[in-house]
Amino acid sequence: MKKTCSSFCAGAFLLVLALAPCATRLAAQQGARQAILAVLKSQQADWNKGDIRAFMNGYWNSPDLTFAGTNGFTRGWEPVLLRYEKTYADKAAMGTLEFSDLEVRPLGSDAALVLGKWHLQRRAGDVGGVFTLVFHKFSEGWRIIHDHTTQSPPEPK
Amino acid sequence: MKKTCSSFCAGAFLLVLALAPCATRLAAQQGARQAILAVLKSQQADWNKGDIRAFMNGYWNSPDLTFAGTNGFTRGWEPVLLRYEKTYADKAAMGTLEFSDLEVRPLGSDAALVLGKWHLQRRAGDVGGVFTLVFHKFSEGWRIIHDHTTQSPPEPK
Repeated sequence: MKKTCSSFCAGAFLLVLALAPCATRLAAQQGARQAILAVLKSQQADWNKGDIRAFMNGYWNSPDLTFAGTNGFTRGWEPVLLRYEKTYADKAAMGTLEFSDLEVRPLGSDAALVLGKWHLQRRAGDVGGVFTLVFHKFSEGWRIIHDHTTQSPPEPK
Repeated sequence: MKKTCSSFCAGAFLLVLALAPCATRLAAQQGARQAILAVLKSQQADWNKGDIRAFMNGYWNSPDLTFAGTNGFTRGWEPVLLRYEKTYADKAAMGTLEFSDLEVRPLGSDAALVLGKWHLQRRAGDVGGVFTLVFHKFSEGWRIIHDHTTQSPPEPK
């Protein structure tokens, strides 16, 4: 009986040892997911205050930041900011932003793919579509290093 | 003199040791880049033969493959194939595909972000735009796990 118990305990210990890296990875992924969702939540709140510069804090402040849209690529944090400021000239044009259907897929320990939908509620007419984001983990936190945003055609009435 | 030489040799040896992981990483990134570009080259060739099924070999054969386009998300290898077959019903609609301005950005050891432009030369009128691809390295090679493709509006004549 004693021997069986020892064998059982040793087996259980080895199982715990074997599963530990898996549990650590899952915990890290869960932490990354929460941190990324917090960045997007801040972006949504900043946009809805009409503060595009604060919204831009979610992006990597680098000349290598890339944004893909209907009219091709925009490269660099400043040009992406200018693009937003030009497209959304005032609070009425910015409307009320809502992200939905967010899906975070880890790509190694310091990168993640995020898919989602965006919707702008506006007096002049709602717009929305889908986006693909690639996040990278920097010392200051998770930031978007690439954004591909598409506007969907208006739904038939 | 002998002592100076020994110190120099020891220093050089340590430098080589220190740089070795960096050189290994660069070589791995270069290998990944070549493998990814080869997948895209095959896709282009298969498309131009009118073989959409062969073109689909560049994608991860999984229900978790995702494709983002103007009309939202398509999920799964089979639905993405069906979407291509529906949008490009025959060789005339498929036209001649050309990828250009390809940029491969490593995301860790087994993932990469690829940006580029696509162009279809067709009798019925050319179309083109930009794409964002996320590749993952599987045992069978690098495959696209997510594709976001946007069609640009026609250029003013």
